[in-house]
Amino acid sequence: MFKYEKKLQYPVNIKKRNLKMANYLQAQYGGPDSELSASLQYFNQRYSMPDDKGKALLTDIAVEELGHLEMIAAMMYQLTQGATIEEIKEAGLGGSFAIHDGTLFLTDPNGVPYTTSYISTTGDYITDLESDMAGEQRARAVYEHLMDLTDDIDVLAPLAFLRQREIVHYQRFKELRNQYLNK
Amino acid sequence: MFKYEKKLQYPVNIKKRNLKMANYLQAQYGGPDSELSASLQYFNQRYSMPDDKGKALLTDIAVEELGHLEMIAAMMYQLTQGATIEEIKEAGLGGSFAIHDGTLFLTDPNGVPYTTSYISTTGDYITDLESDMAGEQRARAVYEHLMDLTDDIDVLAPLAFLRQREIVHYQRFKELRNQYLNK
Amino acid sequence: MFKYEKKLQYPVNIKKRNLKMANYLQAQYGGPDSELSASLQYFNQRYSMPDDKGKALLTDIAVEELGHLEMIAAMMYQLTQGATIEEIKEAGLGGSFAIHDGTLFLTDPNGVPYTTSYISTTGDYITDLESDMAGEQRARAVYEHLMDLTDDIDVLAPLAFLRQREIVHYQRFKELRNQYLNK
Amino acid sequence: MFKYEKKLQYPVNIKKRNLKMANYLQAQYGGPDSELSASLQYFNQRYSMPDDKGKALLTDIAVEELGHLEMIAAMMYQLTQGATIEEIKEAGLGGSFAIHDGTLFLTDPNGVPYTTSYISTTGDYITDLESDMAGEQRARAVYEHLMDLTDDIDVLAPLAFLRQREIVHYQRFKELRNQYLNK
Amino acid sequence: MFKYEKKLQYPVNIKKRNLKMANYLQAQYGGPDSELSASLQYFNQRYSMPDDKGKALLTDIAVEELGHLEMIAAMMYQLTQGATIEEIKEAGLGGSFAIHDGTLFLTDPNGVPYTTSYISTTGDYITDLESDMAGEQRARAVYEHLMDLTDDIDVLAPLAFLRQREIVHYQRFKELRNQYLNK
Amino acid sequence: MFKYEKKLQYPVNIKKRNLKMANYLQAQYGGPDSELSASLQYFNQRYSMPDDKGKALLTDIAVEELGHLEMIAAMMYQLTQGATIEEIKEAGLGGSFAIHDGTLFLTDPNGVPYTTSYISTTGDYITDLESDMAGEQRARAVYEHLMDLTDDIDVLAPLAFLRQREIVHYQRFKELRNQYLNK
Repeated sequence: MFKYEKKLQYPVNIKKRNLKMANYLQAQYGGPDSELSASLQYFNQRYSMPDDKGKALLTDIAVEELGHLEMIAAMMYQLTQGATIEEIKEAGLGGSFAIHDGTLFLTDPNGVPYTTSYISTTGDYITDLESDMAGEQRARAVYEHLMDLTDDIDVLAPLAFLRQREIVHYQRFKELRNQYLNK
Repeated sequence: MFKYEKKLQYPVNIKKRNLKMANYLQAQYGGPDSELSASLQYFNQRYSMPDDKGKALLTDIAVEELGHLEMIAAMMYQLTQGATIEEIKEAGLGGSFAIHDGTLFLTDPNGVPYTTSYISTTGDYITDLESDMAGEQRARAVYEHLMDLTDDIDVLAPLAFLRQREIVHYQRFKELRNQYLNK
Repeated sequence: MFKYEKKLQYPVNIKKRNLKMANYLQAQYGGPDSELSASLQYFNQRYSMPDDKGKALLTDIAVEELGHLEMIAAMMYQLTQGATIEEIKEAGLGGSFAIHDGTLFLTDPNGVPYTTSYISTTGDYITDLESDMAGEQRARAVYEHLMDLTDDIDVLAPLAFLRQREIVHYQRFKELRNQYLNK
Repeated sequence: MFKYEKKLQYPVNIKKRNLKMANYLQAQYGGPDSELSASLQYFNQRYSMPDDKGKALLTDIAVEELGHLEMIAAMMYQLTQGATIEEIKEAGLGGSFAIHDGTLFLTDPNGVPYTTSYISTTGDYITDLESDMAGEQRARAVYEHLMDLTDDIDVLAPLAFLRQREIVHYQRFKELRNQYLNK
Repeated sequence: MFKYEKKLQYPVNIKKRNLKMANYLQAQYGGPDSELSASLQYFNQRYSMPDDKGKALLTDIAVEELGHLEMIAAMMYQLTQGATIEEIKEAGLGGSFAIHDGTLFLTDPNGVPYTTSYISTTGDYITDLESDMAGEQRARAVYEHLMDLTDDIDVLAPLAFLRQREIVHYQRFKELRNQYLNK
Repeated sequence: MFKYEKKLQYPVNIKKRNLKMANYLQAQYGGPDSELSASLQYFNQRYSMPDDKGKALLTDIAVEELGHLEMIAAMMYQLTQGATIEEIKEAGLGGSFAIHDGTLFLTDPNGVPYTTSYISTTGDYITDLESDMAGEQRARAVYEHLMDLTDDIDVLAPLAFLRQREIVHYQRFKELRNQYLNK
């Protein structure tokens, strides 16, 4: 079971509204290589890991990614708070407003609903760990794209933190895979 | 952020393999009215709640539903462990085996991938709470259908617990809605 | 069986072209909480109602929602008639034009095709009526969002009519649910 | 707007329960070439027809197809009424039961939700009429497949009626297209 | 099996960057009536054709359409090469950039992933050929829409070539259908 | 552009009808880790490779995977030829028959339509090559699952060949990635 601690893993304090940037962040909220994809894939795959160590690593990272999803939500929330209808229209988000008001929703930036078609589990733990490594690389690439799309330091700082975590996760999955291969 | 406690909210100890029952449980794992739908909907909607009390309730229940998703996974895992290829074929699950081996995956019982098309957020907190109440009712109905599909007491007990929790959540959402309406 | 009467339930006479508003209206044409969702959900659920009164109510409202879908189509048609390619491009609708010319299509405002993943039926008529009540609330919220997006009185008037009908439907579903509960 | 007449276009009186046949009929209820696809495609395309005659034909057939959808629903309802849980399991429909009880839902026979990805509108009325002709041919083929799947005369009679109507619609679309081409 | 020849069927030499036009071309890359739809539909249907002549025609056109898909990709690539982040944002493509960088991906212009829900096979070869004829008409209409969206002669020339090929394919499918009907 | 050679890459001569095995093979025909996914992903990614060598490798393997897709189609065709309606019903394929007759269609074994949500392109060639390596591993795992599902030597031989090719592709992607990393 899970516990919630009312605190973000890394602080988010964005002062400047930016609806388009909020929209781009949907890539990590409900996109193919989002924190949601990572978290759900690892929660699901941990049942296929061959030992407690593997199960624990998958669980740990799944739980951390869920916290990252929360950080992305906090960023989107702060980037959109107080927006007027005119700002929403100008940002090209009138269609999403019609459905969801100015609130968050689990789609990609184009409004395509999230689907578990984005993730995979094969029951072969070496293969699953390679999928996880590739997924972490894609997530890192998405963070780099997002960092290219802004120069707001309040947005860049948490993005840089999150990007760094994907690199750490990649290493941890790689180490585990190598240990299993060398057994 | 989130913490994981290596313990299920309610114990799951299933002794008898039953692949078809595991498949039916996918309704609560990756189906429209699944624990995943509930958890994601509440995590997403909490940003629209008008006060801390509302945000806290949505968060609490979202976190608990995630623990229920874990219970469902544990049930499916125990119901399928040790299955032979022949048993898998006989249960009509050869197609899923071809993709995912005998492991869990976030689809409904028919193999349809989970999608956030199943959930909603309107930014209107009264409306969102009514959607949550209706969602809890549907989840309760799904648990009742699942209980109709088995007579294994080890499966029935956690299902009965989970069904009961949906009723409690329904009440809590209803109370909050009524408080907001009476303000 | 059904009969068509060549008359809208409420008159639509829009004089001013507005492609973006037409696009926003897709929320009620092919979006999650659209008139299409309402109509299909009630047509499907009426088979689960326990008596003729319930079946008749679901049928009545399903038929009316179909007429509302027609009103939305008429509004979108009038808002887009005579648009030039340049206007279409400027409204950000060049991509939809490439596929569908300037015509209507059953997607949400972001171009996501309509899917029955948006609707539900559980076979439990109390639950289904609560889903219907929540659905009417969401549809009402969407109409309010749409009314926020325009100040064209010719668009506002039919939207206000349609919003009002959702409130009436909510009441009728609620009354029926209460009668069933009090039996 | 639309009116409902409490009468099927052709009588449906099925005496023998057959859950698998009900499931196959989903092909015409929520499948790619279903009555729903036909009805929605024509309702949507009528706005692109160049004259009142074209608009009227599209509307007429769209309305009739909606009545056919109702016939399919009636057939499925009669084929499943009174089924026990054991019969549902044996028919391989336990997974659908978990979500929807024994009731109808707008998916194809494999449980894939209906989507408007199945239909099209190009704004070019000659092209749209050719799509409609091809669609009627596919619907006729589906009825022939369904007739191959049963020897229950009470099921065959309405299927034969519906198949015949698709042939008539094909002819009417073809005549209209030819008139437009010869102008 | 297949062989690749490093040469486009018709030359593509676009000198002027145009991100929006590249985006519109997604209609033929990953849209409902795209070259991908055509190619996959014919490859799949050739197994249902009643004789070698039919199988050969379907294969020939499927292979040619794959080459057309390559031409579309080349056009999109040349239209986007060297784009700056600012140009990408201004073209409304920041969301796609966040996921895919400036690269191609198999979606429609709105970012909706390609799905084989767009295509069909009925096993009835006359019906399948009529679907193919209608599909070629829709693809032709899409090319005409695309030609309406640009006045760049380097873009128009390959589009005109591709449009012409769809007309030729339509004729070839029609001839084959007529031969089969007249047997 | 592409050329077709009327010859399979490896011979397929299956003598014994087996509808269920044909259905399982859909995992490689229209499933998430299918030959179609591989081919489309590489065709799409080759535009992101940094040099001719990379583009050529992606193209080569994409073209070969298309030939593998053809082999899978041939296997499915031979496994289903001559099936009676009763055999189709018994294999649980009556629903697919209702839509597609006994023919092939690009879905996974559960009838879920193929979607490009299964594949990815990030524009970062190292990341894309890691995605390709993981994809080849998953495809290999799927072939191993399929080999577990049959003991028909005529089916096993081409599956073993195809499995072996995935291993070769994995190596070639890995070599290219390493060369790029060591530059």
